[in-house]
Amino acid sequence: MTIEYDGTDYHGWQRQPDPEGRPTVQGAVETALARVVGRPVRVQGASRTDAGVHALGQVAHFEASWPRTPRALQKGVNALLPLDVVVRELSEVSPAFHARFGARGKWYRYTLRNTPHPGALDRDRVHWVKRVLDTARMREAAGHLLGTHDFRCFQKEAALAGGTRSTVRTIHRLDVVRRGPYVHIDAVGDAFLYHMVRAMAGTLVQVGLGLRAPGELPGILASGLRSRSGANLPARGLCLMAVHYEGPQ
Amino acid sequence: MTIEYDGTDYHGWQRQPDPEGRPTVQGAVETALARVVGRPVRVQGASRTDAGVHALGQVAHFEASWPRTPRALQKGVNALLPLDVVVRELSEVSPAFHARFGARGKWYRYTLRNTPHPGALDRDRVHWVKRVLDTARMREAAGHLLGTHDFRCFQKEAALAGGTRSTVRTIHRLDVVRRGPYVHIDAVGDAFLYHMVRAMAGTLVQVGLGLRAPGELPGILASGLRSRSGANLPARGLCLMAVHYEGPQ
Repeated sequence: MTIEYDGTDYHGWQRQPDPEGRPTVQGAVETALARVVGRPVRVQGASRTDAGVHALGQVAHFEASWPRTPRALQKGVNALLPLDVVVRELSEVSPAFHARFGARGKWYRYTLRNTPHPGALDRDRVHWVKRVLDTARMREAAGHLLGTHDFRCFQKEAALAGGTRSTVRTIHRLDVVRRGPYVHIDAVGDAFLYHMVRAMAGTLVQVGLGLRAPGELPGILASGLRSRSGANLPARGLCLMAVHYEGPQ
Repeated sequence: MTIEYDGTDYHGWQRQPDPEGRPTVQGAVETALARVVGRPVRVQGASRTDAGVHALGQVAHFEASWPRTPRALQKGVNALLPLDVVVRELSEVSPAFHARFGARGKWYRYTLRNTPHPGALDRDRVHWVKRVLDTARMREAAGHLLGTHDFRCFQKEAALAGGTRSTVRTIHRLDVVRRGPYVHIDAVGDAFLYHMVRAMAGTLVQVGLGLRAPGELPGILASGLRSRSGANLPARGLCLMAVHYEGPQ
């Protein structure tokens, strides 16, 4: 399945208890699927997006027996899902396909609104930055993050506590592009650490505002210290655009 | 003032009692303005947009004495407004300026999402049409609506009951353009009747689906009958993009 969702009212993708009692996207999809196929269904998503993060192209797999076409299943699930979650595509895959472990890459987009005043219509989809961002500086800084590095300095500290898993990742693309009132930060990588895109975006915004120099990035990376990189930007500006797989599915 | 708003949670622009108890955009703006200037303020808007209709460029004027800069007033008002209403611009105008009676033209955009499945992120901003729309046919039909006509056939019937005011209007532009998953209907005219854009859009969609021929439009116009034109499309797809004025203000 390819799933689009508005994360505003969800406690993220992954099923988990929420003190505020919000549903999760995974829970919503599993509930709708179970009602259509008539049995409990467990769904495995490619990315465990955080509370408030959106997706245009989350990918998830599940096992279920279904006597009719995939299209009929998709229609049934969409009819039962709330309006802020939509299954855009659903097809049969090989039993070897795994949405999470089979993913070869992910594309996230962080959207900044860079105007003197905030917007009303886009308020749940962007992070507003009032002062003019120097996108050339941001691009220069982004260049230092391309390739394979230990990105520990951008990982949420709590996630490091357990601490034995590798924090080395590869970023294939990190573009900073101004389009009308918006600045898009497009990050394509093999995988991302917890909060990594939002922390990288926060650091790039500091560079764009002139608070840091692009040349500081290698030192921040080398330090491995979360305290050296910029604060996480809010979840509402982040969107999982697509998940990439290789070969036949 | 130029005002952007997300109409989803509002009972339209104009202050009026709502059985569902929703606020109006005018009421929200007046409340914020009154708190900043310290006296009641009455705001006059260029367009009385309906419940659920959005605006990127509503224009409104008001009279108030204010010892500081317009920019300080704008900031104060935006700080007090809910997040779904934003004053994008505020400046001093001549006492002769009237947002409504001085308007020379308005640009409305109706946005259709024309894909096999609905979207999640855009669900409050578009009307979803599943079957493929033939936009060339829609453009041909739109051509018959350009210029000066009696548009009574597109006016909400209740509004005709009083019935002595002219229903002749001039449409300068009526474009139908496909952009990715969307079809935009852009209507620029000197003024529009109540529900006119949504009824025209509904009629153009019927043409795009092959349910009517483009050549039927002159007959529908000539009939003057609301029953001959297509149903109103939902408010959420409509957005007031801009209001045009002439000369110095």
